[in-house]
Amino acid sequence: MRPRVLCLLVDGFEEIEAVTPIDLLRRAGVEVVIASLDRIDVTGRCNLRIIADALLKNTLPDSFDLLLLPGGPGVTAMRGDARAAAIASIFHEGGKRVAAICAAPLILKDAGILAGRRFTGHLAIAGELPEADFSERVIIDETLITSRGAGTALDFGLAIVAELCGQEKADEVAASIHA
Amino acid sequence: MRPRVLCLLVDGFEEIEAVTPIDLLRRAGVEVVIASLDRIDVTGRCNLRIIADALLKNTLPDSFDLLLLPGGPGVTAMRGDARAAAIASIFHEGGKRVAAICAAPLILKDAGILAGRRFTGHLAIAGELPEADFSERVIIDETLITSRGAGTALDFGLAIVAELCGQEKADEVAASIHA
Repeated sequence: MRPRVLCLLVDGFEEIEAVTPIDLLRRAGVEVVIASLDRIDVTGRCNLRIIADALLKNTLPDSFDLLLLPGGPGVTAMRGDARAAAIASIFHEGGKRVAAICAAPLILKDAGILAGRRFTGHLAIAGELPEADFSERVIIDETLITSRGAGTALDFGLAIVAELCGQEKADEVAASIHA
Repeated sequence: MRPRVLCLLVDGFEEIEAVTPIDLLRRAGVEVVIASLDRIDVTGRCNLRIIADALLKNTLPDSFDLLLLPGGPGVTAMRGDARAAAIASIFHEGGKRVAAICAAPLILKDAGILAGRRFTGHLAIAGELPEADFSERVIIDETLITSRGAGTALDFGLAIVAELCGQEKADEVAASIHA
């Protein structure tokens, strides 16, 4: 069975942080469904317009193995929509992986799954999450995968590939893109 | 005047190679127009659907300062459409910058602007372009900016920002994304 990843998008998402892991995961043979919280046509923080694969209301979160949360100013809207944190909480309690980058660890905070965990994120979240470790590009703590921002999105994407498909597959993808 | 970048897209483009420089350039305040050769709704090699800003036939290439050519299997279709190489040739002859990554230097070959120049690209183009230097992540030779692939897209994007907006702006963008 191919691993399945659910990626949540909302207007104001950070383009590099969404597209880089999606691209790398699909190269690795992982099925990724880009689910929009609202409209199927989603606009990133840099005005890139992406057509999502589905609306969140039409997806079955239970059928996925990993939740992927890109950052960007859209995280504020995502926190205002209780579904993202609720899904993160359900994934976490079910022993499934949750991956969040940049400001998206704030959604994991709302989900109540950061207590006692090692994680990182963008320096901009230090006010709300002073216990984050901003010295590492990617931190994996059991089922939690976090990363700093667009500049570490490649490391983040390859780390998710390694977790879902093994290090050999991650190395193969990295070599194919001259990483 | 803000610098203006024309980015050409066609089905089969490499998502990271397009989105990363577009994102970084827009963060730097550069105006980027994503122009599709065919339909306004363009699908990348990893099945990501992007809505372009314009159709190429409705843009005025003369009004731009730099041509950006992402790679991916779509480069084959772009070579079949004579417009991409023709625009690259016009930019080059006008002293304007041309940036190409991965397989896209093949379009510069078709445009006849690689003779005597230092450039790089994806190893997959070595058969047609054995004179490429595959040892560097980004090569800048006067107005030509080339890079290896999705794994070097961040370096490529920051190098274009530095060329158009100065190193200080590139450093500022790099710091903001924790590069």
